[in-house]
Amino acid sequence: MAFDIINYLRAKRELVDRALDTLLPDGGESQARLLESMRYSVLAGGKRLRPILALAAGEAVGADPEKVMPAACAIEMIHTYSLIHDDLPSMDDDALRRGIPTNHRVFGESTAILAGDALLSDAFGMLVAEGLRRGVSARMICEIVSDIAEAAGSRGMTEGQAMDLALTLAGTKDVTLPQVERMHALKTGAMIRVSVTAGARIGGADENQLEKLASYADAVGLAYQIIDDILDIEGEGDLGKERGNDERHGKSTYPGLAGIEESKRKASELTRKAVGILEGFDHRAEALRQIALYLGCRNH
Amino acid sequence: MAFDIINYLRAKRELVDRALDTLLPDGGESQARLLESMRYSVLAGGKRLRPILALAAGEAVGADPEKVMPAACAIEMIHTYSLIHDDLPSMDDDALRRGIPTNHRVFGESTAILAGDALLSDAFGMLVAEGLRRGVSARMICEIVSDIAEAAGSRGMTEGQAMDLALTLAGTKDVTLPQVERMHALKTGAMIRVSVTAGARIGGADENQLEKLASYADAVGLAYQIIDDILDIEGEGDLGKERGNDERHGKSTYPGLAGIEESKRKASELTRKAVGILEGFDHRAEALRQIALYLGCRNH
Repeated sequence: MAFDIINYLRAKRELVDRALDTLLPDGGESQARLLESMRYSVLAGGKRLRPILALAAGEAVGADPEKVMPAACAIEMIHTYSLIHDDLPSMDDDALRRGIPTNHRVFGESTAILAGDALLSDAFGMLVAEGLRRGVSARMICEIVSDIAEAAGSRGMTEGQAMDLALTLAGTKDVTLPQVERMHALKTGAMIRVSVTAGARIGGADENQLEKLASYADAVGLAYQIIDDILDIEGEGDLGKERGNDERHGKSTYPGLAGIEESKRKASELTRKAVGILEGFDHRAEALRQIALYLGCRNH
Repeated sequence: MAFDIINYLRAKRELVDRALDTLLPDGGESQARLLESMRYSVLAGGKRLRPILALAAGEAVGADPEKVMPAACAIEMIHTYSLIHDDLPSMDDDALRRGIPTNHRVFGESTAILAGDALLSDAFGMLVAEGLRRGVSARMICEIVSDIAEAAGSRGMTEGQAMDLALTLAGTKDVTLPQVERMHALKTGAMIRVSVTAGARIGGADENQLEKLASYADAVGLAYQIIDDILDIEGEGDLGKERGNDERHGKSTYPGLAGIEESKRKASELTRKAVGILEGFDHRAEALRQIALYLGCRNH
């Protein structure tokens, strides 16, 4: 029977949504508003790409999905915090995210900042407590905390966002394609990479497998971002955010610099590369293969 | 020879300042601005109360200070991130901190938000990597990451800041003393408590010792905050920030609600309580004793 990627993604998304609902802190009375704003953004849906990649990477090497889930959810919490902060007035000043008003438009700017801050702290706390509870070794948890912190911090996502803001200030005509690629590698690539490697680590992947899966993640991550930027220009489905954001913000993007056709060619090349990297893996890596192919031709 | 608390604090502060300088990430060229803003705020000085408490608590139970230092510095990085975010225009909108312009006044609001975010991520990453390197067990590091994340997150410091903002909005006449105590326990108390318990844990403290030291920390933390608020009203020395901040911001404080004299009495009572709790500890707890006494009568 052929692998049904649409059903796979839906089933995993539902699994992740339920796990997030359980693993997110729930309110005592004095915390009502802060927790409400955290849950508002995390539970607003979204594709759950990062946690699904973590689960699929675990699957590829035989991990127990119950043991992968805390890391998968921690990464999604950190991803959500970064969206909340990126949308702030002093950053991209966006009004819509995941199809609903951005956090600060609903809860105000100070609560939005604090909701992001709390999601970042809570993600690490939950990952450790829930990982240990599910029998992940302390040593493994330390490695994953270290990897995620590096991917999220001043050598990863946060620096990527700073670079994004700096490139936007520099104006589209002074920015080069390698700078845009570097920005994406930091801003979204690092967290996508750690999603894959965290899942694989928990499944007991060896160094050789981890290295290959990291390259797979880098190819998928850049292809994903290029297609995101193409869809921002010519997409037709419901993106859950405003279209034309990049142009309005004066952002340098891959399609903006290289043109739509060249960007599509590049995304296809990256997709083929990602699938090729998986050749040494057995049938359990089928989900990772299908995810790369699906992301390579998505239209929303 | 009598214990010289002034020299003790200076020596430890210098040790912490040097460790922070080493343990903070240093810049590649593309990261220059973000890292510069992180280092600007962390290395601006400050009393280093939290890391010194961690070192002194470790000392009280015979910890190797080299092993305590990563946790001590991680806590100071997280404390600094919270100061950067608390000072933002949408929060307290402060211009001065630790005697110099606040982060956002120098680097702009978006960089200040990202500097805080990066310090929080980097703190956890550094704590794990540097802790393991110095021979702290993975299990111990997990416990400390978990404790710090809880103290910093939605059940600790971040919720305390949200409560502070909410109480300020509520106006001084509708706020009660128990609410102010609860706010302080979350906003500053939780991180002061984890400073003490992290140091003690690394020194191998048993559950009974940890519980006593946590009570010591709670008493010292509240006394510290009450005196901070008294100094904001009638202090004469250089506080490193603007005086009269609380009144200007319409903040409910302990002295504002209970009066200066009652607040001084309460601070003394808490100091005596803190010293009393240490009675079961030997001479190695002398620094903790002296710190409580020193903080109980400080004038800056």
